[in-house]
Amino acid sequence: MKPSNLQIDSSRLWRDIHDTAKFGGTPKGGVKRLTLSEEDRQIRDWFRAACEAAGCEMHVDALGTMFAVRPGRDNSKLPVGFGSHLDTQPTGGKYDGVLGTLAALEVIRTLNDAGIETDAPLCIVNWTNEEGSRFAPATMASAAYAGEYDTENILGRRDADGVSVADALDRIGYRGDEAVGTWKFAGFIELHIEQGPLLEAENKTIGVVERGQGIAWFDGSITGFASHAGTTPMPLRRDALLALSELALAVEQAALAHGSNAVATIGEIGIENASRNVVPGDVRFTIDARSGAADILDKMHDAFRRAVTEIAARRGVGIELIPVWRKEPTVFDAGFVAAVAQASEELGYASRRITSGAVHDACNLSTVMPAAMIFVPCKDGISHNELEDATQADCAAGANVLLHTVLKLAGIAGENG
Amino acid sequence: MKPSNLQIDSSRLWRDIHDTAKFGGTPKGGVKRLTLSEEDRQIRDWFRAACEAAGCEMHVDALGTMFAVRPGRDNSKLPVGFGSHLDTQPTGGKYDGVLGTLAALEVIRTLNDAGIETDAPLCIVNWTNEEGSRFAPATMASAAYAGEYDTENILGRRDADGVSVADALDRIGYRGDEAVGTWKFAGFIELHIEQGPLLEAENKTIGVVERGQGIAWFDGSITGFASHAGTTPMPLRRDALLALSELALAVEQAALAHGSNAVATIGEIGIENASRNVVPGDVRFTIDARSGAADILDKMHDAFRRAVTEIAARRGVGIELIPVWRKEPTVFDAGFVAAVAQASEELGYASRRITSGAVHDACNLSTVMPAAMIFVPCKDGISHNELEDATQADCAAGANVLLHTVLKLAGIAGENG
Repeated sequence: MKPSNLQIDSSRLWRDIHDTAKFGGTPKGGVKRLTLSEEDRQIRDWFRAACEAAGCEMHVDALGTMFAVRPGRDNSKLPVGFGSHLDTQPTGGKYDGVLGTLAALEVIRTLNDAGIETDAPLCIVNWTNEEGSRFAPATMASAAYAGEYDTENILGRRDADGVSVADALDRIGYRGDEAVGTWKFAGFIELHIEQGPLLEAENKTIGVVERGQGIAWFDGSITGFASHAGTTPMPLRRDALLALSELALAVEQAALAHGSNAVATIGEIGIENASRNVVPGDVRFTIDARSGAADILDKMHDAFRRAVTEIAARRGVGIELIPVWRKEPTVFDAGFVAAVAQASEELGYASRRITSGAVHDACNLSTVMPAAMIFVPCKDGISHNELEDATQADCAAGANVLLHTVLKLAGIAGENG
Repeated sequence: MKPSNLQIDSSRLWRDIHDTAKFGGTPKGGVKRLTLSEEDRQIRDWFRAACEAAGCEMHVDALGTMFAVRPGRDNSKLPVGFGSHLDTQPTGGKYDGVLGTLAALEVIRTLNDAGIETDAPLCIVNWTNEEGSRFAPATMASAAYAGEYDTENILGRRDADGVSVADALDRIGYRGDEAVGTWKFAGFIELHIEQGPLLEAENKTIGVVERGQGIAWFDGSITGFASHAGTTPMPLRRDALLALSELALAVEQAALAHGSNAVATIGEIGIENASRNVVPGDVRFTIDARSGAADILDKMHDAFRRAVTEIAARRGVGIELIPVWRKEPTVFDAGFVAAVAQASEELGYASRRITSGAVHDACNLSTVMPAAMIFVPCKDGISHNELEDATQADCAAGANVLLHTVLKLAGIAGENG
């Protein structure tokens, strides 16, 4: 078989996805496998055994991240990294993270079956705590790998029960002896479900991810005046909820002004001492604004500020809007993105360029090495939900693109040698 | 002294208001005297003794409402009733209810001091549980008096600790032996602070209350679709909070369309499973709409329905709006209102006709007898708050109008006899 005709084993990948879904499987067909839990230990043990059976050597770093290395012809070269994560949300699905990690294993098995040696080594990575549901922050291990946090800082983070990351790692036996960052890569490729509706809506099989959205978070509060809903005439009111209503619509407009390049959301609001017959006096809220372009994040922030000033003056309320977090957009490596696009084209899949709406480990890695991502559709764009679903064909297509991208980046031993 | 020159004793009334504020007085200068509490028993005992010292005979009905009767010349005539309530909100003020009840006592004392006998008897009433903070509904005793509820129904109502009205009455010794409705009146006059800002804003001393607002309450829910705040494009969202924002502004417009004759308020909202990075999928809310005119309540309800239909269709969400309570507007007796207006004019007070924004016991009574109310200003329109405030001069003015209104309605023995 010519390598260009090589395809992964769709049935084997599908079986792995469904077999491992039993580790934390829920009655509703989802998965609850919080990071560093007993269920996480179970799938990690399974994964270690499977990687070793596929001829890889397993390394574990101080944060529990697993590195399964398949030697290449020239092991002086940096390995090509690929993978994702095996932890899930409390009511998560079977594909988020799992697809990218098990597809990486399937790629190795496929190469083994075809007797193909790559020029550079390959390394599957299972990043610890991508989800952030048990320990904050999300994507903590890849962020530490990229130098955003010290290892000690992360080891000291505690879950809601007061258990530290260090203790949780020890309990399941996954506190590795290698320093975080020991393994360097030529680059990193992550296959993932889209977690959004675009590919499905446009009937595309592959998303060639060229950007990851930057995120700006704000905490806000509005101070009006609580008064009697029966006795306070409309013109004398300083209704904090009406001010928020106008601001919410202004936030929507600020995102719509940038077409498909921005989103913005008010996700939480609360009225202090709310009562059916009291004009709301104090309201707090959050804003989550995202864009693949930093200048659009800036423009949205400007638009929020203008709306705040105008609404506060007109309605006689105080509005405070505090930026609490900003993550700059990810721009994935042009060469890696081109490799994904080329692999998809060669395989004949309908594809589109896409911006990742969610944050992924690959976004952290892109700050220290070339990186890219491959998306496949998920049903109705639903993720972080037990209803999360994807088709066997789309999962296989993503794994095939992953296979051929990795082959392009690692090279095939002897082809050009 | 000619009766037309008669004035109440402003200092005595002011002292009574401040002396009795110790029953449940709070460190912030307010009053917490929940109905049928130990503090309520204390002021009831004080009030009983004061009424008896003023020559009245005290009667208590099965719901604890207190009737202090001063005989007239012709006791075959129905007494003129006047008074208010002595219970307060959990963080209430010193004037709400107290002013009308103690001013009624002051009227009797003034008549005693001047040696004036009325033609018809007089009866001060202290209605049980006007506030509704401990037991629902508010104004329960006057509503039962007016036939809206059976006595047994009200006796069975329980507070948050499971204590019934019957038990609470027994505990403080105020479960009277007279059936609810035993005392019939020629009519009822209630003096009260405005609990709104109009009199103060227009520098008027007396509000001649000609209407009480009707109230329409709605419970609403909006069903959109909860989705990922990063991955869901703006045009594909079904954001329940944005739909609510538009509806809130439409509710405001629906009230503004009727100028000073209507108010409408969204006082409570909640997002189900709210999260900073999730597009709100399910939102619930309340609407409180009020007007002195029934047809305006109807028109506002129509406007809400139109907005619901339009917003639901445009935003692809489901909106349910359920009417949960409606109280028709109160139209006070024209003759009684004229008596209040005339008394105020004769005393030289600046006055205006006004609609009560809040519900009062007098509103219930107006369904079964002639009734009217007298308002005096309160600072900044603030009530149901420990900051509630009113001036001695305004309280005295209100009591003087009460005195002369009662004299007009009850007649002075011998004047026309």
